[in-house]
Amino acid sequence: MDHRRIGRQTVRLQDPPSVVSYANIGGKMERNGPLADTFDELDDDPFFGKKTWEQGESAMQSRAVRRALNKGGLKGDDLDYIFAGDLLNQCIGSSFGLREFGIPFWGIYGACSTMGEGLALAAMLIDAGFARHAAAVTSSHFCTAERQYRMPVPYGSQRTPTAQWTATAAGCCILGSRGDGPYVTHATCGRMVDLGITDPNNMGAAMAPAACDTLSALFRETRTRPSDYDLIVTGDLGQLGHDVVVDLMDRNGFDMTRNYTDCGLLLFDREKQDMHAGGSGAGCSASVLSGHLLRGMQEGKWERIVFAPTGALLSPTSSFQGESIPSICHAVVLSRTKQEV
Amino acid sequence: MDHRRIGRQTVRLQDPPSVVSYANIGGKMERNGPLADTFDELDDDPFFGKKTWEQGESAMQSRAVRRALNKGGLKGDDLDYIFAGDLLNQCIGSSFGLREFGIPFWGIYGACSTMGEGLALAAMLIDAGFARHAAAVTSSHFCTAERQYRMPVPYGSQRTPTAQWTATAAGCCILGSRGDGPYVTHATCGRMVDLGITDPNNMGAAMAPAACDTLSALFRETRTRPSDYDLIVTGDLGQLGHDVVVDLMDRNGFDMTRNYTDCGLLLFDREKQDMHAGGSGAGCSASVLSGHLLRGMQEGKWERIVFAPTGALLSPTSSFQGESIPSICHAVVLSRTKQEV
Repeated sequence: MDHRRIGRQTVRLQDPPSVVSYANIGGKMERNGPLADTFDELDDDPFFGKKTWEQGESAMQSRAVRRALNKGGLKGDDLDYIFAGDLLNQCIGSSFGLREFGIPFWGIYGACSTMGEGLALAAMLIDAGFARHAAAVTSSHFCTAERQYRMPVPYGSQRTPTAQWTATAAGCCILGSRGDGPYVTHATCGRMVDLGITDPNNMGAAMAPAACDTLSALFRETRTRPSDYDLIVTGDLGQLGHDVVVDLMDRNGFDMTRNYTDCGLLLFDREKQDMHAGGSGAGCSASVLSGHLLRGMQEGKWERIVFAPTGALLSPTSSFQGESIPSICHAVVLSRTKQEV
Repeated sequence: MDHRRIGRQTVRLQDPPSVVSYANIGGKMERNGPLADTFDELDDDPFFGKKTWEQGESAMQSRAVRRALNKGGLKGDDLDYIFAGDLLNQCIGSSFGLREFGIPFWGIYGACSTMGEGLALAAMLIDAGFARHAAAVTSSHFCTAERQYRMPVPYGSQRTPTAQWTATAAGCCILGSRGDGPYVTHATCGRMVDLGITDPNNMGAAMAPAACDTLSALFRETRTRPSDYDLIVTGDLGQLGHDVVVDLMDRNGFDMTRNYTDCGLLLFDREKQDMHAGGSGAGCSASVLSGHLLRGMQEGKWERIVFAPTGALLSPTSSFQGESIPSICHAVVLSRTKQEV
């Protein structure tokens, strides 16, 4: 009855769906960062040609989807489903960015884990024969995130050392039932984990335990070890969260010291760009996946990777009411071959 | 490759998953309404024993899930997945309501269409063998919605005739690979539809075209007519939206005058309770489904129904920026037998 499930949280795709196309777009800081060459489009205008930052964020999602379709030789009508969400209240980055396409739309909310959730669900629906092509897309924008979650941008408030910098970026990945890979071979659905961190300026520490929970489940349920992968990459834990993961995973018996990194450490140069703990935002992991990581796999740099973005499921209201920060991490295994190792 | 798909938007479940259990909870207005007898729990305290309205909304979701589990003789560990979302910024009704359960969690956002989205995705993952049991849950709360979307409640602002009343309610429905029905036989995924309505106090008119788009696709792709169902019920269009649907569907060649109603018209007595256009909110359709509708089906009142909740994908920010209101409707067919008619 549940023959595709191999554990409490992990499923194995029977006929692993393939990445068919992908595209990403970034802003000025992303242009100045070390991954600039891996972007399809970089735009120094924070409005992306629109009148407000929110409309600009929507434009990023729209452009990322359009580019991914073009690169894959696909039209909107070829997409059976699109999974999308973002950090804005009521996910308006997605709804206003994608309404013009007329594609059957599943709205999702996983904060910065959204790209992992979208990829996992898209892969499952394709594997089961509910869809031939399905896309996952998400975004974040420094200015929309700051004014919604923290302070008005022009106020210029001082940031704490544990704070991260929200990426102004979007990534779109299209999966299909046929293709030359990389393939999504496994997906591990996260559970909410909340160890009581209440500081919204220390997301790395809040989200790291969720990453550990999901990664431990993935390794346990697939009977693999970190060394079975060429790269393990979380979403936007930054330096502090990254180090917490290494530490907590060690206690669980997993050595993460050799091949583990975080999209928030890859996207920016922390020192030169004064990024404090690193990059963050749903668009951080989505754009690093839909560029640096998938390109690298296609170039033969890595055979098999774990992509495990994390999300902090808080709101300003919950923080004002004294709540701690529940977090979640959804992971997918991407492999250049359909065979299991 | 996509053998479960029968049209652009509709899929047929190969081995239709069964409703295994369901539960709902409501507040004071729901107690005074005509469906009071169909609730598992009614609580006059708008805080549901907590300190804030938002925490109260989370408590509703938590209690609805716990009751549904108990009624079905299930434990949290029996649920392979839970799909949840709500209207609050960053869906904190769900994250704080469900974090204690430790159930693999897919956060979704479809505004008031959330119950339709959750049921559809849960049914698909069960049908494909990714899960044995999966739940869909959502909620809304008059006070949290008012203060977030409109005006502070104590301000007591005048409401327009087209305004609706947000239900203070939650509903949870658990699906399983085995059971005695009702069964989810088909799911139609919505596309975003935006005909340019900009008045956030007239959600019915904004969402009705989305209901028409999805219902028309469902009838066309399943080769059925409205008369093939005992009941067709949208989520929370209220009186005005209901009438727009009847009108627009007539132009598409579908007669909706005989067996079509709306959860927002069922939950409250519009005249006696001074509800203007009717009830609304994600909890409106979720609680009417997880009580009145599923009970009625089990009692033999209806053999086959279409449940089609609609969502308005706006935020106060998008309205302040002059945007119109993109809407969406996700539909599922529930049937007492697995066979197609």
